[in-house]
Amino acid sequence: MHGLIEALRNALPENAVLAAPADRQPYETDWRHIHAHPALCVVLPKTTAEVAEIVTLCAAHGARLVPQGGNTGLVAGGVPVPAAPQVVLSLKRMNKILGLDPTADTITVQAGVTLQAVQEAAAAAHRLFPVSFGAEGTAQIGGAISTNAGGIQVLAYGSMRAMVLGLEVVLPDGQVWNGLRALRKDNTGFDLKQLFIGGEGTLGIITAACLRLFPAVASHATALIGVPALAAALDTFQALRAAAGASLTMCEFIDAPALELGVAHLPGARLPFTAPGYLLVELSAHAPDEDIAGRLETVLAGLLETGAAGDVIVAQSERERTELIRLRDAVPEGELAAGGALKHDIAVPIGAIPATVAAIEALIARDFPDCRPNIFGHVGDGNLHVNIRPPQGQSLADLNTRKAAITEAVEALAVTQGGSFSAEHGIGQMRLAGMAAHKAPLELELMRRLKTAFDPQNLLSPGKMLPP
Amino acid sequence: MHGLIEALRNALPENAVLAAPADRQPYETDWRHIHAHPALCVVLPKTTAEVAEIVTLCAAHGARLVPQGGNTGLVAGGVPVPAAPQVVLSLKRMNKILGLDPTADTITVQAGVTLQAVQEAAAAAHRLFPVSFGAEGTAQIGGAISTNAGGIQVLAYGSMRAMVLGLEVVLPDGQVWNGLRALRKDNTGFDLKQLFIGGEGTLGIITAACLRLFPAVASHATALIGVPALAAALDTFQALRAAAGASLTMCEFIDAPALELGVAHLPGARLPFTAPGYLLVELSAHAPDEDIAGRLETVLAGLLETGAAGDVIVAQSERERTELIRLRDAVPEGELAAGGALKHDIAVPIGAIPATVAAIEALIARDFPDCRPNIFGHVGDGNLHVNIRPPQGQSLADLNTRKAAITEAVEALAVTQGGSFSAEHGIGQMRLAGMAAHKAPLELELMRRLKTAFDPQNLLSPGKMLPP
Repeated sequence: MHGLIEALRNALPENAVLAAPADRQPYETDWRHIHAHPALCVVLPKTTAEVAEIVTLCAAHGARLVPQGGNTGLVAGGVPVPAAPQVVLSLKRMNKILGLDPTADTITVQAGVTLQAVQEAAAAAHRLFPVSFGAEGTAQIGGAISTNAGGIQVLAYGSMRAMVLGLEVVLPDGQVWNGLRALRKDNTGFDLKQLFIGGEGTLGIITAACLRLFPAVASHATALIGVPALAAALDTFQALRAAAGASLTMCEFIDAPALELGVAHLPGARLPFTAPGYLLVELSAHAPDEDIAGRLETVLAGLLETGAAGDVIVAQSERERTELIRLRDAVPEGELAAGGALKHDIAVPIGAIPATVAAIEALIARDFPDCRPNIFGHVGDGNLHVNIRPPQGQSLADLNTRKAAITEAVEALAVTQGGSFSAEHGIGQMRLAGMAAHKAPLELELMRRLKTAFDPQNLLSPGKMLPP
Repeated sequence: MHGLIEALRNALPENAVLAAPADRQPYETDWRHIHAHPALCVVLPKTTAEVAEIVTLCAAHGARLVPQGGNTGLVAGGVPVPAAPQVVLSLKRMNKILGLDPTADTITVQAGVTLQAVQEAAAAAHRLFPVSFGAEGTAQIGGAISTNAGGIQVLAYGSMRAMVLGLEVVLPDGQVWNGLRALRKDNTGFDLKQLFIGGEGTLGIITAACLRLFPAVASHATALIGVPALAAALDTFQALRAAAGASLTMCEFIDAPALELGVAHLPGARLPFTAPGYLLVELSAHAPDEDIAGRLETVLAGLLETGAAGDVIVAQSERERTELIRLRDAVPEGELAAGGALKHDIAVPIGAIPATVAAIEALIARDFPDCRPNIFGHVGDGNLHVNIRPPQGQSLADLNTRKAAITEAVEALAVTQGGSFSAEHGIGQMRLAGMAAHKAPLELELMRRLKTAFDPQNLLSPGKMLPP
């Protein structure tokens, strides 16, 4: 394998191969500091041709490859597994915006461009790139596509899958598939890009993408609403949806323990009021003449009257809007800073949200009463993050003996409700037990046939997504 | 093979197997009356179990299967090819709506339900199912999914792919994949349903689907606009899009020769004014308080002032709206009734529309000056139907010696502009030359690997989509 590092050094520009343990370490450790396994080396290509060269060399030397984006994933999908020698291929230096077409409303970028850079390029052209989540300043387009990332505006715009018009992909044999099309419609055979979207790097390495843009939003109306419980949150969502239709672009639920973790993490931040649960909602004016502020006010007045909503605060400026969204975005970081949690990412049909959450709360109270749950998520997508913190005074590691039982129970409850055990985070190396437990054997068999058809030697992302 | 018909008769209820030539004939002939090859028999199952049984029996007897929906496709994808013995499997009797969930905004149906039945069920629940095209009264959900059908509202809502949450599919070995999930988010491995969407029945037979619904539209504002040329149509689209954002839900271009074919076909219909080209545009109020009529009026006033638009008529009632849309929807039928045309279905990046059309018009004028072109399509999708009618007094068959040359030239012009030779109709048995000419060998190779992974014996939809 030393021959491989030498060969990579010869093939790539200076400083593109990191082999020293200290240099490798940030690329070997996942965002949650749970998984850290050594890589043979880390490579930092700048071009698609370099990626193809790296793949070819690794294949020749029998080394496996772990493609890595911003390394902000929550299932350790972008870091090595404890297995055969692996090379981490970071896309971070492939950070060029290749073009923006304001007539066609498309942007074409290298895979290592961050979500925030795409959002900013779109805004500069008076367009919107709507996929948004807390880690957007670090998360990269290639990783977001490979995990079909979601976030806080899926309700109105869809996940990453809905953004992708075309892809360029380096295949496991080093060939480059140029599917970088910029078309709204193209029914010419199997839509190959769909396999790489959400494919977690197991079939190919995404090196560039052409993405949809949307008209810029003319104005926002944003509010934080106190709600007594998740059932009321669902009622509030339905009322907003009925009154605001497609202008409802965000409807986030955050329970009190979760939001307090976010607030504690933001210097100087404080909650405007307290409630058992909170909804962060936003209406977006898609046309310049739309009075969304008035629309929001009318709905909120009705909700306050019926008691579906308690306290309410409406952002009066862009600064206040940003602050409200920061409260929500800070929850995962606040939780990590407070010692982390056993995380779950479930989805159920929207109507089943209250029953699912009631069942989970009952389960924790009965079987793990010392643990501290918090729940937040995306009401309109039926997607809830159910996080279990260890008992007061204990560390996450102290949960080790019970974590499999907790996760099994939470995931099974979601599946029982017709739901999914992984809504937007994917599988990586942390949800393999869920795959084995809940996917039908036939479905796993079809997935393995796909893997074999594209990567018969299992060179890419070994130990991810598909249970052994 | 007689053994097969007998076995099918034994396995299925009475009248589920049609073997007499006269009974088979409607199922053997495509909508455009271009392809008509004999089937061994036609089977009409009512349940998924019956479909599985049919597939198993056909596999055992070495007969191939042609799944057929409403048989309204334009590339002869649902009728037999001149090859080995084929059984046509019509889904038309699988026409049950299985459920509608107004909280989750989903509807679950058997594959043989028509688009119109889904639209009507959605409307009865105050919801919208937005995929709409002329043949919607006959076209079935399974066929529309298998071809990733588009239509007149893709601009705002997307093609069928964007509607599908879950699928049930009978695989080539007779196993049933139950992927009939109703979730907005589900990142648990490869998104298998994407392979069957637009897969033209080559990998499996879709037997049921769970589809997204949208909030009902509160009101429409619909207008027919006269435009001097396609460049002006594009300008008009941009102006509407800037002013109306997501409320612009339809922007159809129809040139004068195309619209006249539609008008001639509708008893009593007449054009309110004449122009070189027409735009049929519609704004939809997604929120009850939205003044889209005023919004449309403002944009139209601006367009009339600059001369981008000539005459304009705004529908003053739902009846007038329906009549305007019928004019557009009648174009394909009117063309067929007038003897048919050599059809093309190209897509280009939106900004390339005027240059592409100018090049096509120049080509026809230079090399085929006696032929009569007409062009219509979906401006916001960059999707144009370029149809070439034979010279006055000749039949479509008289074009036979020149049709390959015309089609090759039109498709190549689209591809040269970064476009596609098949935007929304698919490949079937009529676009195989385009696949061979314009798809990269690597892309065809990947598609063949998928076909082999799912259907190694090539039992389903032989001779479709993939060139030999």
